[in-house]
Amino acid sequence: LSYGGKRVRPLLTLLFCEAAGGDPAKALPFAAGVEFVHTYSLIHDDLPCMDNDDMRRGKPSAHKRFGEANALLSGDALLTHAFAAVSDGTKAGVSAENTVRAVRELSLLAGAPGMVGGQYIDLKYEGTDCAPDVLLQMDALKTGALIEAACVLGLLAADADESLFAPTRRFGRSLGLAFQIKDDLLEYEDENEHSDEINEKSTYITLFGAERAKALAADYTRQAVEAVSVFGAPGQTLSDFACALLKRNN
Amino acid sequence: LSYGGKRVRPLLTLLFCEAAGGDPAKALPFAAGVEFVHTYSLIHDDLPCMDNDDMRRGKPSAHKRFGEANALLSGDALLTHAFAAVSDGTKAGVSAENTVRAVRELSLLAGAPGMVGGQYIDLKYEGTDCAPDVLLQMDALKTGALIEAACVLGLLAADADESLFAPTRRFGRSLGLAFQIKDDLLEYEDENEHSDEINEKSTYITLFGAERAKALAADYTRQAVEAVSVFGAPGQTLSDFACALLKRNN
Repeated sequence: LSYGGKRVRPLLTLLFCEAAGGDPAKALPFAAGVEFVHTYSLIHDDLPCMDNDDMRRGKPSAHKRFGEANALLSGDALLTHAFAAVSDGTKAGVSAENTVRAVRELSLLAGAPGMVGGQYIDLKYEGTDCAPDVLLQMDALKTGALIEAACVLGLLAADADESLFAPTRRFGRSLGLAFQIKDDLLEYEDENEHSDEINEKSTYITLFGAERAKALAADYTRQAVEAVSVFGAPGQTLSDFACALLKRNN
Repeated sequence: LSYGGKRVRPLLTLLFCEAAGGDPAKALPFAAGVEFVHTYSLIHDDLPCMDNDDMRRGKPSAHKRFGEANALLSGDALLTHAFAAVSDGTKAGVSAENTVRAVRELSLLAGAPGMVGGQYIDLKYEGTDCAPDVLLQMDALKTGALIEAACVLGLLAADADESLFAPTRRFGRSLGLAFQIKDDLLEYEDENEHSDEINEKSTYITLFGAERAKALAADYTRQAVEAVSVFGAPGQTLSDFACALLKRNN
């Protein structure tokens, strides 16, 4: 948890709580839960039987530092503890009803119908070319679902009006895709500088080329920005955040 | 989930709900959540980097059938979905407050302070002799914690009186140890018949001998039975269940 990272997901939880008129302090347990899930997913993803990545954020990955069994267990511990963190919502002043909803949202969007389902698709197509719609579906689940959960949990902490949930989900899903395409673009630029690290898997760049991928990322960001127009003036921070993510550099 | 097993943990959830005067139908989502957690723990436990078991319940283990990456992901999916299952408590008529408490209990008792912590101790002492108190602490966490959670979640489904929680936790912990020692005894008898499968790890039998281990299992069962005397007549089923587990055969 203290190994770096941009904290995109917990920030979204706090920003959505605030944009919906809530006190971001109430959203802290939910924000923590979301980051716990994200961190577990990186640790399990890096394992030898998955992506077999020796490095994470420029440092040795968990199984390289602590061994494979400890990495597996630490991922399990983080995933399990995410739900204890979310359950602390009631201690921060969120209603028990909304805390239960937060548990359900996080579980479904992080699990087989969401993030884990995306990982499964990723495995299935490993080493083979996949069609653009498969890549989009995979990233919508692998990356978009947890980002959607992060946003929705912010609304639940704020006890937001039900009308805000659908546009917030659209924002999360669009931002998730924009974020993933931008990630692929940054990795592609990085590989062009270090040509020995060329990755063989299908990405938006191998499928569409860099220029079209850039346009696609901008387009999904625009969709995200449009979705949060219903928040009025307090939604400006959300739009700014989406645009900043699109412009980020390595 | 449909791969066999005795369903000890979900049965305990339903039995404790009933013994506390609740409708066991209300406890079904909690019982399912506990069994999801148990099943994930077996799948991850069998992985090559952990116990490296090719067989589970007389059939190929998950990674043998579906590959290591799919086994890892299915464990992650089961663990994640356990909390969606528990969150369905409200749909079955459990209060949102008690559903949040159930999430917290399951998370803490299944996580680093509970079951995963026990797994970590197990790994740490792998291939070395360990002292009796370490073995007891390991099994209290590895086996006892989730059994305690199963019992406590039954009380929460029944909205039981707070006075019942402490004796129920004692029952769960004692039963967990009795259950684990009995498991070791059954494995020991099995190994005596198939001498090529002798296990090298420390067990109650290697530390105390079979006779003393049997007495220890009986003693923990007796402690469990005593703990649920506060339930009065409806507690008889709980005592009977504990005694039946002690007398089980391979």
